[in-house]
This record gives sequence, C-alpha cells and structure tokens, in this order.
Amino acid sequence: MTSAPTSPLTDPWPKSPVLQTAYRARAAAADLAPLPRAAKDDALLAMADALEVRTKEILEANAVDVERAREAGTSEAIVDRLTLTPERVRAIASDVRDVVALPDPVGEVVRGSTLPNGIDLRQVRVPLGVVGIIYEARPNVTVDAAALCLKSGNAVLLRGSSSAYQSNTALVKVLRDAVGGAGLPADAVQLVPGESRESVTELMRARGLVDVLIPRGGASLIRTVVEESTVPVIETGTGNCHVYVDAQTDLDMAVEILVNSKAQRPSVCNAAETLLVHQDIAPEFLPRALDALAEAGVTVHADERVLAAAEQLEGSKATVVPAVMDDWETEYLSYDIAAAVVDSLDAAVAHIRLWSSGHTEAIVTTSQAAARRFTQLVDSTTVAVNASTRFTDGGQFGFGAEIGISTQKLHARGPMGLPELTSTKYIVTGDGHTR
Amino acid sequence: MTSAPTSPLTDPWPKSPVLQTAYRARAAAADLAPLPRAAKDDALLAMADALEVRTKEILEANAVDVERAREAGTSEAIVDRLTLTPERVRAIASDVRDVVALPDPVGEVVRGSTLPNGIDLRQVRVPLGVVGIIYEARPNVTVDAAALCLKSGNAVLLRGSSSAYQSNTALVKVLRDAVGGAGLPADAVQLVPGESRESVTELMRARGLVDVLIPRGGASLIRTVVEESTVPVIETGTGNCHVYVDAQTDLDMAVEILVNSKAQRPSVCNAAETLLVHQDIAPEFLPRALDALAEAGVTVHADERVLAAAEQLEGSKATVVPAVMDDWETEYLSYDIAAAVVDSLDAAVAHIRLWSSGHTEAIVTTSQAAARRFTQLVDSTTVAVNASTRFTDGGQFGFGAEIGISTQKLHARGPMGLPELTSTKYIVTGDGHTR
Repeated sequence: MTSAPTSPLTDPWPKSPVLQTAYRARAAAADLAPLPRAAKDDALLAMADALEVRTKEILEANAVDVERAREAGTSEAIVDRLTLTPERVRAIASDVRDVVALPDPVGEVVRGSTLPNGIDLRQVRVPLGVVGIIYEARPNVTVDAAALCLKSGNAVLLRGSSSAYQSNTALVKVLRDAVGGAGLPADAVQLVPGESRESVTELMRARGLVDVLIPRGGASLIRTVVEESTVPVIETGTGNCHVYVDAQTDLDMAVEILVNSKAQRPSVCNAAETLLVHQDIAPEFLPRALDALAEAGVTVHADERVLAAAEQLEGSKATVVPAVMDDWETEYLSYDIAAAVVDSLDAAVAHIRLWSSGHTEAIVTTSQAAARRFTQLVDSTTVAVNASTRFTDGGQFGFGAEIGISTQKLHARGPMGLPELTSTKYIVTGDGHTR
Repeated sequence: MTSAPTSPLTDPWPKSPVLQTAYRARAAAADLAPLPRAAKDDALLAMADALEVRTKEILEANAVDVERAREAGTSEAIVDRLTLTPERVRAIASDVRDVVALPDPVGEVVRGSTLPNGIDLRQVRVPLGVVGIIYEARPNVTVDAAALCLKSGNAVLLRGSSSAYQSNTALVKVLRDAVGGAGLPADAVQLVPGESRESVTELMRARGLVDVLIPRGGASLIRTVVEESTVPVIETGTGNCHVYVDAQTDLDMAVEILVNSKAQRPSVCNAAETLLVHQDIAPEFLPRALDALAEAGVTVHADERVLAAAEQLEGSKATVVPAVMDDWETEYLSYDIAAAVVDSLDAAVAHIRLWSSGHTEAIVTTSQAAARRFTQLVDSTTVAVNASTRFTDGGQFGFGAEIGISTQKLHARGPMGLPELTSTKYIVTGDGHTR
C-alpha cells in the first residue's frame, strides 16, 4: 500500500550528471510552459544586457579555447569561427533583442470548433518541453539556441563542441544568472556537462526526458545523432542543392541565378552544388555559364556532354574536370559545382530524386508548364522558380530567426522558426459530456 | 567520367525482399504525390467495390488464420478480433467510402506571403512519401491504413501480425488489383513480405527509403519500434488517463464522467485508469464514486486515504484493494482503476506529470480558475474540462478518420487524421531574384 508520490522527479536521483541535467531541465520546462510572453521577454532582455555587461569574462574564457585550438594546429578558418570579439558579443546580444520582438508562438489556437455534441474543441500551441542542441564550434549558437528555446517556452540542453567548452561555459553562466535574476528558473538554460563522447551518447538515449534533439553541424555529426539517438531527432542541414536550366529560359537570368546560387556564399547549406541543363538550351547556355563560373572562380565537375561543350570553347578560362560518380552526391561547400546535360525536365527531376539531399532545388524557366511540373514533382524542402537557392533561410523567409533547416519530412521541413519549436495539445471543454 | 544516371532506383537492385518492397513503394510514392483528388477517390471507390465483390476469397483466407489461431490456443477474444464475416467486410468497405468524402490535404496552402523583396512564398502540404504501419491482429487496419495513406498521396508498407498473414495477403491482393485497375501504381499498397521478426527489423532500419513508421498495438510492440528504429517513428496509443475531481465540483457530473471514462469501453487507450480526488471533496465524493464504480463492476486500487474512506462505508458493494506502486503507471485496459486523494490541484498535476503517459486527463470542476490552471499545467495530448476522457478520438473530433493517436510531441500529437499524414514544402517564386 502506497500513497501517491507527489514529487515529479525520480527517486533515487540519477547518478549521471547528464541525466541530472535533463531532470532539472524537465522541472524548468514545467515552470516555463505556462509563462506569459512578457515574463519571457524580460528574461531575454536581461540576457542581452548581461552579455554586454560581462563581455570581459566571456572573452577571457574564449581566449583559452582559441589558444588551445591554435596549439592543436586548428585551421585559421575554424579558429576565426571560434573567436569572440567585443563587436561579436555585441552582435550576439543584439540578436537576442531581435528575438524579443518576435511573437510568442505558445498559446496560439491552431484549430478550433464546436463539435456537433456541443463540446468546444481547441488545438493550441505548447512548448516541446526539453530541447537538446548538439552543435560544433561557433559559440554564438549557444546564445541563439538559448534565446529561441526560452522564447518558445522550452528548456534547452546545450552540447557544443569540446573546442568551445570554456566559451560556452562562460556564456551559459552569464545567461543562467540573467534568467534567474529575471525570476525564471535558471535551469531553463544548461550546458550538458563533460567534454567526452559518452555525454553525447547519454543525451541521445535520454528518451522520455528530452523531447527532441537538433544536431547542427557537419554531415557526420548529424548521421551519428540520427543513427544512435532514441530521442526523436530533427535532421538538419545537408544541402546538395540543384539549379536546373530549362529548355525555355531567360539566359541572362539563368546565368545570374546559377552564379548567385553557387558562389555568393559557397560554404552554406543552401548553396548550389549541381547544375543540370536541358539539352535543347545547352549549346547556347553552357558557353556563357562556364565563363561566368570561371569568372567567379568555380571549378566545374562535368559529365560527358558538358565536357564536350567545354572542349569546343576557345580561349575560355573555365576550369572543367571530368565528373566521377561521387560528384553527384557531394556537398562541396566550396567553389566547385557538378554539371550535367539532361534530356528533359523529367530527367532532371529523376536526377534530383536520386541524388539530392532534399534541401533546395531551383528551376530557371520562362515556361509556366515547366515551372508547374517541376514544383509538383520535386520533393525537397524548398523549390525555387526563377530565384536563387540561397533564399532558403529563416531570415529571408521572414521568420525572424532560425534554429536550423530541417531536411526531414516529420514535424518540420525547411527553415525552422519559433513555431517549429512547439507542439500542440487539444483542449476539450464540455458541460458534463459523456459518450 | 560518368554520365548522370537517369533511374531513380539503386543499382544494383537490393537482394532483400523487404528493401525491394520499400524501393517499389518509393517509386509509387513519386507517382502518387502529384495526383489530383479525383484520381485518388476513383481508386478508393474501386477498392471498396472490390472488397465487396471478392468477399469470398477474403473470408477463405481469413478462415485459415482463424483455424491456425484456434489450434494455437489463442483466446476467444483475440480470435474474435481476427475473424472476418460478410458483414464485417461490408463495414470495412463502407469505411473506405467514408474516406472518399474527406477533403484531400495535399496541396493545401498552410502559409503564404509576399516577401519584402517581392518573392512569393508558399508553404504547401505534400505527402510524407512512404508510410510504414506495424500493427497487431485486426485485419481491418490493413484496409483503413491503405485507404488513409492513398487518400493523402502516400505509399503504404503494411506489416501486420503474422497471425493475420493469410487475411492480410488476401486483402492486399484485392486492394492492389483495384488500385492498379484504377490506373494508379499497385505498389502504392504493399504487404511487407515474410512473417519473421527480421522483416520488421529491416523495415525499421530502412531510413531514407521509409519516411515514417507508425506502430499500432500493445506497449511492447511500440517500445520495440521506438527503441530499434532509425526510421522516424510516431509513437501511438499508450493511455494511462486520469480523471481529477476538483474541490469545487458538481458531484453528479463528476460521478457520471468518472464512470463513463472508466467503464464505457475499458479496453481502449482513452479509457481512464486513475482517479484523483481533492481532499476537500473526498468525504462527499468518494462514497458515491465507490458505489457507482462497484455498480459498473470496477475494482478500485486505492491509496491509504481512499482505502480509509472505503472502510467507513457500510453495506457498500465496492471492491477496493490496496494500491501498490505499479498501479499508478498501469494501463489496465480492464475494469480496474487506481484511486488517490490529493492535497490540491497542484498535487494532482504533479501526480499526472509523474505517472501519466501523456494521453488524456480530465478535470471535473465548477471553478473557472481551476479549469484554467489545470489546462495550462497538464501537458498531455488532450485535456478535458467537464467531459469524459473517451472523447479523444479522430472520429469524435470530427477528423472523419484516424490512423492512430500520437502520444509524442513531434510532428503530430493526439488523434491523427489525414493532415497528419502529410509534410510540407516551400515554393519560392521570383523574377530572377538573387541575394
């Protein structure tokens, strides 16, 4: 015979520091869920202020990480991503203030009706609960993720790269003090303790404690999380994006969109990685495209037909190499692009279905029928018609912020803003209704 | 140097029959996705007609399963669930015709705007792609799931119980013939070959081929799928539902809702499994509740305070036994209920947060403040105010059909209808826009 327990936490308290963190996050999430927007916005403003006031201790911690990275022979590009400066901290604080201005998704009535029996049915947005973010380098993600999760009423568990451990520890300390000072549970923002791989594994296995894991980083990180996690995962980011130039097209527009999609910022997931050209337009388009890509410093990994076209060009500066099978599925993230001539729009679609990571594909066409067929048949998060692949972005889409770009079909697809950090619940209100 | 491949299927063709089925489903899904509603509705009507025309061969196959089940000493209740009759086949066909009447979720514009740069942004519903359903007994699920998936433009992979293998094989044959006869790809509906556990494991590991797995059945089936699957899973169905009777309450209403929630159909997931009573109302409420539960044939697993109340009842027919710890988390699915007295509404919420499976919880109260606090703090798929827990159901909610009740927070929560079988994609339309 037992009385009903009244503590929402397990007995005994778990020994694992990772699971302790997760239990604390659950308790904080329960407190956060019913909070009105004003309480959350006050905490966000306190976070932004604290980042500016305590910049010195953040930079000191960051300097330790940077020095360690240099000693380990890390590339300057990665050291630069890791490095914080007073200006960068100010920019991070400013991003937090931008989140304050966004509407609160919690409480939104998604659907509502009165049922035939008189019951009032409402489906309302609620926080997911505990959100785990596993990410690499870039300490700004620590603050971004904390701000977006707090605004949407979620407790966040942050598991950054061990190379940024000191920076993240300092940032989270500042954020927790600010959240606690604003009267909210400091455990709404926590760093997952430990720098070992085991702490990641524990996090991935904390099903029932953690509601969702969002990995942000390279393909191998994401694959590991997807394969090993029992916690539901939102897969993000791999972008093998295609630009298809249709038989009927505006050649100037096609060249501009191609170059912009590939070269405006090649290191990001919405940059184009493969060019497909309809055979009817190839003789006109390819010479111009190859020159423009050469101008932008892009190497073309060409199939037989693109290669043949390149060989006929006299005096071109184009760098063209033969494509191998791997090129069709490679996300270069560099000044490289694969290129092939296809027999038809449907062949382009078949190529995309086979090789694309399902992120973003663009068609450049003057034909309404082609635009319609391409958008119907291509199954990616985003299909662009006469626009650069580079627009697939939470900021560009007007979401105001982005926690990542989902490339899976479940829960969220494409750029994820605040509503994508929520679930829903149904509220059924009757006057004693029974069945 | 390679030409771009043009077949959307792998080379070499996989040797595993399960993976072959999944590849065929992907190809079918690509054909289904752009189909207009009329084409899908025609196929659904053909399915319904074929079930009625070919009832004889379905019943013959079913008789084999039923005989085998009887020989294996299966309980009559389960044999009954397995058994098809001409009337039951007619009812199944009629359910398919009901799906025809439902709106097609595919193509719905979920969100749309013109961005400041003039780009038109639309988020539209698209099918998930390939949906795998793993389920137990009940051959009607085979047809229901096929109809709902086809209507929402998805190819379905059906993995029923091996005890219903002959019935499911016959049903799927009839459905495939009808779908093919209506000019749609027959591979839109497939049975996963093999009766072994290995075929389930292969299905659960087919990430990238199968877009989502929905297990329907007992808790151990669902746990296995959740733990072992790399394919995204929608967790369904476990319902440890609570009825909380508040300090301020209409006693008649509370008794009625309690008995209806528990006893109207105890074997289903939205039946109540635990009663929580505020201490202030317990002296008045418990005697009436215990009598009413006894009347309905319900055994009460009572905490100390409920037990004490029961001992003071003279001449009561109530069957009351002491609760053990396990009772608080048990989904009885029988004429049993756990019962506890709690100190406050907040204590009821804490109990629910600790023990509930997050399906449905009801409060019976006359207090607006209590109703508001309970609905804010309880984090379950459905919170009912002055209504039975039994209303959490796709049919009751007016969705017209239900593929299951999700008890997870990602993608879908609560009863899942046709929209929950879709994802979305963004369509970005410009006039040569670049960044």
